[in-house]
Amino acid sequence: MQRIAIATSQLQGKQILLTIEQYHYLNRVLRLKEGDRFIAMDGLGTWWLAALEEAQTAQIVEQIAVQTELPVTITLMAALPKGNGFDDVVRYCTELGVSTIVPIISDRTLLNPSPQKLERWQRIALEAAEQSERAIVPTITPPVTFTKSISTVTATYRYICVARGANMHLKKAIDSVPLVSEIVIAIGPEGGWTTTEIEKATSTNFQTVSLGKRILRAVTAPIVALSVIAATFEESTPRMS
Amino acid sequence: MQRIAIATSQLQGKQILLTIEQYHYLNRVLRLKEGDRFIAMDGLGTWWLAALEEAQTAQIVEQIAVQTELPVTITLMAALPKGNGFDDVVRYCTELGVSTIVPIISDRTLLNPSPQKLERWQRIALEAAEQSERAIVPTITPPVTFTKSISTVTATYRYICVARGANMHLKKAIDSVPLVSEIVIAIGPEGGWTTTEIEKATSTNFQTVSLGKRILRAVTAPIVALSVIAATFEESTPRMS
Repeated sequence: MQRIAIATSQLQGKQILLTIEQYHYLNRVLRLKEGDRFIAMDGLGTWWLAALEEAQTAQIVEQIAVQTELPVTITLMAALPKGNGFDDVVRYCTELGVSTIVPIISDRTLLNPSPQKLERWQRIALEAAEQSERAIVPTITPPVTFTKSISTVTATYRYICVARGANMHLKKAIDSVPLVSEIVIAIGPEGGWTTTEIEKATSTNFQTVSLGKRILRAVTAPIVALSVIAATFEESTPRMS
Repeated sequence: MQRIAIATSQLQGKQILLTIEQYHYLNRVLRLKEGDRFIAMDGLGTWWLAALEEAQTAQIVEQIAVQTELPVTITLMAALPKGNGFDDVVRYCTELGVSTIVPIISDRTLLNPSPQKLERWQRIALEAAEQSERAIVPTITPPVTFTKSISTVTATYRYICVARGANMHLKKAIDSVPLVSEIVIAIGPEGGWTTTEIEKATSTNFQTVSLGKRILRAVTAPIVALSVIAATFEESTPRMS
């Protein structure tokens, strides 16, 4: 069944006020007729089964239980790689269940991204959330410097991935984290974090961790980290459908 | 230090006979002079520290111990996704330690790839192996049908990833696999395996497993599977360097 994302403000009681674009997409592109059903997602965790109406509206049939979200809340602080690599970080990590992505301007980040980039990432997150059947569209914050971002962290479980050196593997580090928790994971750019950045992080209680013995690209590391965290928190709860 | 991949046939006692292209790369592109050192990898697990000589040769200084390979041997059987998605599968999975990648023509695969594609994937694997500091360049086999490929599997531990249904998570399934083993993991195309394919696999002792509750793209699923397997076999052995 087709899914579209709606804003909370589009809900009026049991009715959804569709935008012109949404109505056009459902009616013209997907060829849905009056009474045909689709799924509306509010991006905050709620899905509704809805039936299309003629006057650019839809009637809510019922709320749907979604079971595709992780019990753990993951904030990914990922340094901006060169080129368009962050598009892939957003797409893959959304598929893997991330809650919030903070694009980080690190000491070794070369460019300050344009505001258009943020809109692009938010659009990619929306598409990836729909495709992977998530109930929540992750938040992508505006880019921020690493120093500023670590000063705002409130989560108890904080990890910073470091490519070289004898650090504990992330998988081992999160083994004792309770099922319903907040995890923050920071991942550096090509060339890694600077020593100063790692020191700043550890002084605010970030634990240094490894993602394995090979040197991963800046685009690969966040995907690996999310895969490992998602698997740890989901291994005992198979999907039911 | 710069690394280049050499063929075993280029080794003559303590000397490496460089190709014109390799010598040009080392001498002209990297500006190495006589006596400057680089790393030569044979793609089969051995690295040597070598010193450049003038006559398109290099002298082996010593063999280097590499610790970037997984103890487990992983064969990935991945159905070919549409477009150029397989490039990413090869690149990411090489970074994550895969041993062999078998491009699978499944019931839902639309196109038979050209021979140029195989050469391209092998080149990507070589580049990714160098970048991630692997000692082994993974083997990419020519594309093969799923039915044919499962008839040649000899590994004891065989898994087929299925997107929907209540299957055990891959992470849980591999928990009891011994450290030095061979694992085969089969991952389907967009739209998933057909029922016939899943039945064929289970009849040859493949275990159906899940990669989590969200629907992953055909490109994402192999990366997640490799991340989970690599983390399971590496969590207790941090990188030393």
